[in-house]
Order: sequence, then C-alpha cells, then structure tokens
Amino acid sequence: LSFQTHLESVVAQVDGALVCSVMGFDGIAVQTHQVQGTDELELSTALIEFTNVLSQLKNAAELLKTGGVQEISINTERVTTLMRLVTPEYFIVLALKPEGNYGKGRYVLRVTAPKIRAEL
Amino acid sequence: LSFQTHLESVVAQVDGALVCSVMGFDGIAVQTHQVQGTDELELSTALIEFTNVLSQLKNAAELLKTGGVQEISINTERVTTLMRLVTPEYFIVLALKPEGNYGKGRYVLRVTAPKIRAEL
Repeated sequence: LSFQTHLESVVAQVDGALVCSVMGFDGIAVQTHQVQGTDELELSTALIEFTNVLSQLKNAAELLKTGGVQEISINTERVTTLMRLVTPEYFIVLALKPEGNYGKGRYVLRVTAPKIRAEL
Repeated sequence: LSFQTHLESVVAQVDGALVCSVMGFDGIAVQTHQVQGTDELELSTALIEFTNVLSQLKNAAELLKTGGVQEISINTERVTTLMRLVTPEYFIVLALKPEGNYGKGRYVLRVTAPKIRAEL
C-alpha cells in the first residue's frame, strides 16, 4: 500500500474531484493523483485556477500549522480546494469542480488523513 | 435596513450559527450579531475558539484579498468558520458549531454578500 492508493481512492469516491495530493508545508507535493477527465477543457481550466490557489498556499499552510486548525477550504469560481492537516509536516489537498460533492470531500479527507499519517 | 438586519437573518437561517460579523481587512468588526444560545457553556467554548481563529485572520484575509478567492473556511474541532468576500475592503464571517448546517451557511453567505455590498 502506498499514498498513491489512498489518493486514487479519494478521487474515485468524490464526485467532481480533479486532483488530490500529499504535500509538505514547503509546498512540494510528495505524491499527486490527477483524475483522467472526459471534459478536458473544463478540467484544464480548473487545474489552472487550482495552481493559482496553490501559489497562495503559504498563507493557508501557516494557518494549518498554527493553533488547532485542522481543515481549510479555499474556494474560487472555478475550483474548490480542501486542505486537511495530516502531520505537523504534511497535509492532504483535494481540488474539486465547484459543483463537486463538497460534503463528501470533507468526509473522505477526514477518514483518509489517519491512513496517510500511518504511512508517513 | 442595516447590516444588523442581514446578520440577524443569517444567524436565524443557519442551524448551529454562533456569530456573524461584517469585518474590515484590518480585522476590526463593523457590526456583529451573536446568537443568544440556550447551552451557554457550549456557546462560550466555541466562541473562545472562534476568537483564536480570528487571531489568525490576517493570513486568511491575505488569501481573500489576492487572486480570485471568494470564500475561505477554517475549521477546528470546536468551531467552523466561513468567510466570504463582500468588497475589496470588507468581508462577512460566520461561525458555526461543528454540527451546524455548513452547506446552508455557505449558501446564505453567498446570497447575503451582495445585499451587504449594496449598503456599504
């Protein structure tokens, strides 16, 4: 079992999922799984916006590292981003289409975080 | 009509709402409406955690100000915080109990933001 299995499972379980990564607080992805979309144009537009959000990740990462914050969501018109703390050094991030299943995404990250933690 | 009416309406519509504020990006609340809770202990515990989250607001505010980010959610064990951009200078923030109606909260902030914008 590897991170990859967990990331594939997250993307498979959540309608509208685009990409899921385990990342360090330095902003470097340890492992990433990107959905193979049918609507390539919609997918690439959302992924461009996701990359823009990631460029602002440093501020969000600071929030996750301080205090008891466990989950952050950053939403734009084209992409919904959920981030959840895994360890003091790593977090998991899931990007969804705006019409994706946000509640399911939150749930799946909550149950997946301890599984990834166990392998770090 | 004033901000107060809108804030009261948000709190009344969302199950588990604790407090709703219009704030400037300097972190100063323009107007606040706090629910009169029946379970005072639960309420005050969540409000203490909300205040802790607010102390980390500067990072979140930076995110809202940059790029196309319209909504941020910062969640801890005891409180769920939704922030939504109103104008480049102001945002609305709603604190909920963790078991509160998060989806309804997002919806109500989305429809309330333009009403508040119209009065700023």
